[in-house]
Amino acid sequence: MEQLLCGVDIGGTKLAAGLVKRDGTLVRTAMTNEHTCLDEACLMDLTADMVKGLCRDQGIAVTDLEGVGVGMAGHMRSRDGVVITTSNLDGFKNYPLAKELNDRLGVRVILENDANCQAWAEHLFGAGRGFEDMVFVTVSTGIGAGLILNNRLYRGQTGTAGEIGHTIVDPTSDIGCTCGNNGCFMALASTLNLDQIVRRKSARFTNTRILDNLKVGHDNTKIMMKVDGKHVYGHAKSGDPVALEIMHEYADYLGIMVYNIFQIFNPPVIVLGGGLMNWGMGFFERLCAKFDSLAGHMLFDPIKIVKAEIKDCSGVMGAATLL
Amino acid sequence: MEQLLCGVDIGGTKLAAGLVKRDGTLVRTAMTNEHTCLDEACLMDLTADMVKGLCRDQGIAVTDLEGVGVGMAGHMRSRDGVVITTSNLDGFKNYPLAKELNDRLGVRVILENDANCQAWAEHLFGAGRGFEDMVFVTVSTGIGAGLILNNRLYRGQTGTAGEIGHTIVDPTSDIGCTCGNNGCFMALASTLNLDQIVRRKSARFTNTRILDNLKVGHDNTKIMMKVDGKHVYGHAKSGDPVALEIMHEYADYLGIMVYNIFQIFNPPVIVLGGGLMNWGMGFFERLCAKFDSLAGHMLFDPIKIVKAEIKDCSGVMGAATLL
Repeated sequence: MEQLLCGVDIGGTKLAAGLVKRDGTLVRTAMTNEHTCLDEACLMDLTADMVKGLCRDQGIAVTDLEGVGVGMAGHMRSRDGVVITTSNLDGFKNYPLAKELNDRLGVRVILENDANCQAWAEHLFGAGRGFEDMVFVTVSTGIGAGLILNNRLYRGQTGTAGEIGHTIVDPTSDIGCTCGNNGCFMALASTLNLDQIVRRKSARFTNTRILDNLKVGHDNTKIMMKVDGKHVYGHAKSGDPVALEIMHEYADYLGIMVYNIFQIFNPPVIVLGGGLMNWGMGFFERLCAKFDSLAGHMLFDPIKIVKAEIKDCSGVMGAATLL
Repeated sequence: MEQLLCGVDIGGTKLAAGLVKRDGTLVRTAMTNEHTCLDEACLMDLTADMVKGLCRDQGIAVTDLEGVGVGMAGHMRSRDGVVITTSNLDGFKNYPLAKELNDRLGVRVILENDANCQAWAEHLFGAGRGFEDMVFVTVSTGIGAGLILNNRLYRGQTGTAGEIGHTIVDPTSDIGCTCGNNGCFMALASTLNLDQIVRRKSARFTNTRILDNLKVGHDNTKIMMKVDGKHVYGHAKSGDPVALEIMHEYADYLGIMVYNIFQIFNPPVIVLGGGLMNWGMGFFERLCAKFDSLAGHMLFDPIKIVKAEIKDCSGVMGAATLL
């Protein structure tokens, strides 16, 4: 019988795991949101239990697995299986995740950045199929990326290569990012700072309703009104000028980002994933038009700028098949 | 007897050629400035004559060479040996340079971007020795770069990868580049636009002498007063405020460029060459300090930011040893 791989995607809101065949077929999956309030050790216990549960339901022993691949957002020292930092969960500073999970499961565990996992899945099974070189970028609450060069994931010396989201595109900007710097693509064109950006722009328009009826929550110190991508897109569909300006600005920034990638890698294909690629109303087309206007006469060979094809499980599929 | 390689560096001001051993040793070199007014065919004749002359003086036949490697500024389709465009010489649009030179010499000819050649030389014999991955950037009248990944020159699909100089760092800038776009590093931090930048800044200072005693020349239509890097640096040494501001701004831009390279490639070493690296007065140190201020807490492994070690002949050495 074909040996199965296991992929685990530890995200800020969901923890997903799946049994996967070498050809990418998902055999069985599981998902939970219960991990976000756990400390590292308990989260490892929960993850191990999920993997054991999947194997039990599949009628195999955990040791029958070829291994477990784990994807996680943040800086991963993948060679050593150590989480350096992660921004969407508490703790996990220099945490030897691969060793901890291996202790609990008794099988080989590898650790990789989540965008790298998604890039690998798109390379093998999605929009990057058949290309030796590919750059993958995912744009949602942050910007992650994965570089496939000569059919291999390119990791750099630490394992943090591909952080295109943190490259600076406006040194004069005062809009900050989780990286500690201002004016990177992640600060200016992910949903990370939508709150701040919406508020600033709203002051310039009298005919906007984008701050009306915002969901209001509380943390310990202040009232939180969280603007997300869906909120902006919803208002854009109603013709709200702030929402439309944001969509245009984001499309232009991401078009510049794709252009910069083109200049650096000259790849045959750039694959774009993440929540923002679900914005309609010509968002993706405007992004591509911006790229074309910059690169046009320097495009000596055709380049494919395409949306990711694998929807929900690319993190799990990629983590598993990186084994 | 050890077979020799030949390297040729076709630049905008000088045409250099050399016989080179596999270990990078320059056996014999030749140089001319007579090529700049020639059409493509005559320039190929001149190049072939130089190579033949070097072989004659060395007492070998041209066919004794292992091959001829040619480096040239601009977009090279190196796989096919075709110059797509070059910005520092007239003509050479889609010019089959490798074939033309092969017809004249009867030995194998390869064509490569000049910065790629320099990168390769630094990788084998210079500041990048011993590193599997390295990014090389040269800053002078333009910004060129070469990517060494897994001990190989990374070229991309056309052969134009590594154009970090054309990545956009200020989308709102009105300072243009030969690429046709505004606000790329080459527009803002090479000597390409020093004229324009000096003039603009001079309007803001009363105590500058930077426009005094400028050499004045003529082309057909207008008076040309060319400000170059030496001119700016000379005035900076006299404490000229415009020159000092330019040096600071350039160091900061190049520090951001190095930071962006770090985020994308996470390489163990970044090698910087070109005329601007000869600016003293803490220019290089300020560049490195800017990088550190941006990357500091994300530097999980040490990275070397160093100056290129090979002075004049890295183009010739690299072109030859890429064979």
